[in-house]
Amino acid sequence: MTDAETTVGELSEGQILRGILDRLPASTAPVGPGDDAAVLAVPDGRVVATTDTLVHGPDFRLAWSSPFDLGFKAAAVNLADVAAMGARPIALLVALAMPDATPVSFVRGFADGLAAACAELAPGCAVEGGDLTVSDTLTIAVTALGSLDGRDPVRRSGARVGDGVYVIGELGEAARGLAVLFERFTDAGGAPIALTPEAREALDPADARAVSRQLTPRPPLDEAVRAAASGATAMMDLSDGLVLDATRLADASDVTIALDAATLGEDPARALDGGEDHGFLVTFAADADPIGRRVGTVVTRQDEAVTVDGRAWTGRGGWDPYRDWDAGRG
Amino acid sequence: MTDAETTVGELSEGQILRGILDRLPASTAPVGPGDDAAVLAVPDGRVVATTDTLVHGPDFRLAWSSPFDLGFKAAAVNLADVAAMGARPIALLVALAMPDATPVSFVRGFADGLAAACAELAPGCAVEGGDLTVSDTLTIAVTALGSLDGRDPVRRSGARVGDGVYVIGELGEAARGLAVLFERFTDAGGAPIALTPEAREALDPADARAVSRQLTPRPPLDEAVRAAASGATAMMDLSDGLVLDATRLADASDVTIALDAATLGEDPARALDGGEDHGFLVTFAADADPIGRRVGTVVTRQDEAVTVDGRAWTGRGGWDPYRDWDAGRG
Repeated sequence: MTDAETTVGELSEGQILRGILDRLPASTAPVGPGDDAAVLAVPDGRVVATTDTLVHGPDFRLAWSSPFDLGFKAAAVNLADVAAMGARPIALLVALAMPDATPVSFVRGFADGLAAACAELAPGCAVEGGDLTVSDTLTIAVTALGSLDGRDPVRRSGARVGDGVYVIGELGEAARGLAVLFERFTDAGGAPIALTPEAREALDPADARAVSRQLTPRPPLDEAVRAAASGATAMMDLSDGLVLDATRLADASDVTIALDAATLGEDPARALDGGEDHGFLVTFAADADPIGRRVGTVVTRQDEAVTVDGRAWTGRGGWDPYRDWDAGRG
Repeated sequence: MTDAETTVGELSEGQILRGILDRLPASTAPVGPGDDAAVLAVPDGRVVATTDTLVHGPDFRLAWSSPFDLGFKAAAVNLADVAAMGARPIALLVALAMPDATPVSFVRGFADGLAAACAELAPGCAVEGGDLTVSDTLTIAVTALGSLDGRDPVRRSGARVGDGVYVIGELGEAARGLAVLFERFTDAGGAPIALTPEAREALDPADARAVSRQLTPRPPLDEAVRAAASGATAMMDLSDGLVLDATRLADASDVTIALDAATLGEDPARALDGGEDHGFLVTFAADADPIGRRVGTVVTRQDEAVTVDGRAWTGRGGWDPYRDWDAGRG
């Protein structure tokens, strides 16, 4: 039997854990993995904490995402939520629930993806704890922790009338990537068809890039932390589409966000509705030195939380895992 | 349609979240639930963090556990890991992945269980964040965070030759409760039979108590924190059975733990092998003022990490979710 064929059901939890930890950067925490809990340093006495889960089916397809892709995305989406508060990510805790027929090679690729995301997006952040269990449904629950390093957290509720509205990162690319997958890599019954390395190579460069943005998002964390340091009044991760997320920020701040469609690129509808961008929506006072590109203005609260070119947006309105589950099954 | 029949698939994530948050104690954190991440105060600049997952099948049966029981247990097992470091729990983050046919009443009962566990076991600890998603397999991933309040963390690696070995909490009761469930509440094919309130009432008091210890464990967190303050040299949560957990502590400390069967109650085998006790295994120097009851002594490392009355223990050796999955399906 080759190692690649060994399944997690044939190994102990300790054996699987060692195979993961060996592939991750070494912990620099006061107490790293291996005890009942980790102990992490947050010098200013505050810790930022968030959790997000990826479930096979609504959140990913194994036919499309490699184990590396899944590890990368699971880390990236959680790191983005930490950075959206203006914090520097310091640690991930990773709970992995897998069918016992899962090959051990899956776990290794997944760990490599976690490590790559930390190295690329948040150097110094390490996996400081985790949990392995058995499940019929492959499930990845990640908690990310961060340090504010003395800064105030940047909340959703801080936008003020007259602020400029900015976006850091791309809009709509991840949604376009998902559309490519649903349109070209499903069979007549809607079941996913394997996205092989050869099939990915054969995509035209723009489509390949969009698919990559969907499967391995690269949130510009450094710019989010710089936005916080530059006095952003409000900030949030763009995970469910610009209109839906801007609605949340507007509601939390009791303002209306007036978006300008001309700033939203070639396909404003995709930019407004597409989910999983994992960029950042930020507001800055008029006299600030903003980061990102301007997409609108904060105005006095109106009936609509968000307007596009002065009108209510009647598009799809973002992603809701409950409403969209059947469609999401594709 | 009554409210109890409404399913999570019929509501938005926001509606479900509000139904949960309304039942939980109010946050006292600098930033509580509702933003991209929570911000929590840890005055001494260190945060203790741990995560543990409960999956329908290997970790619980809906036929036996009520929604309240599940919320209580999911909180309790994670709070115990924080206390096992000598830390005071300050926050839970709760990721809940549910089939869309799950009744909304389940979510309410689950939230009540979380709230009750925090109130009873760790007053001041609140649910400060979470995530809801859809899954074919009901999965509960909880992260618990804690504050050391200036104390050193108590690690597994600190036991020294000559230390006394102590247990805080009960041994074997949870395993006996699980045995009652498997023996009396499964059908001929091994499928679970509903543990109704009437059936629970009809159990003799000792069995009812053991079942309760299995379904709603009550780790003595206060005593674990007091043990840390009293100079415990090593400590860990007892989750996988005394022998297996003592082996881990002995390996981490490079010592052997010599247990005395006469200290382990009426059924030493159950105490040695039974899992899910969620008490604490603690070592104290000979001149310390110990907490708990003494069950053995730390001796120079031998071939065996753990001995019972001077010999290797040849019992079952604790719970491993991979090895025991098929048996665990009952």
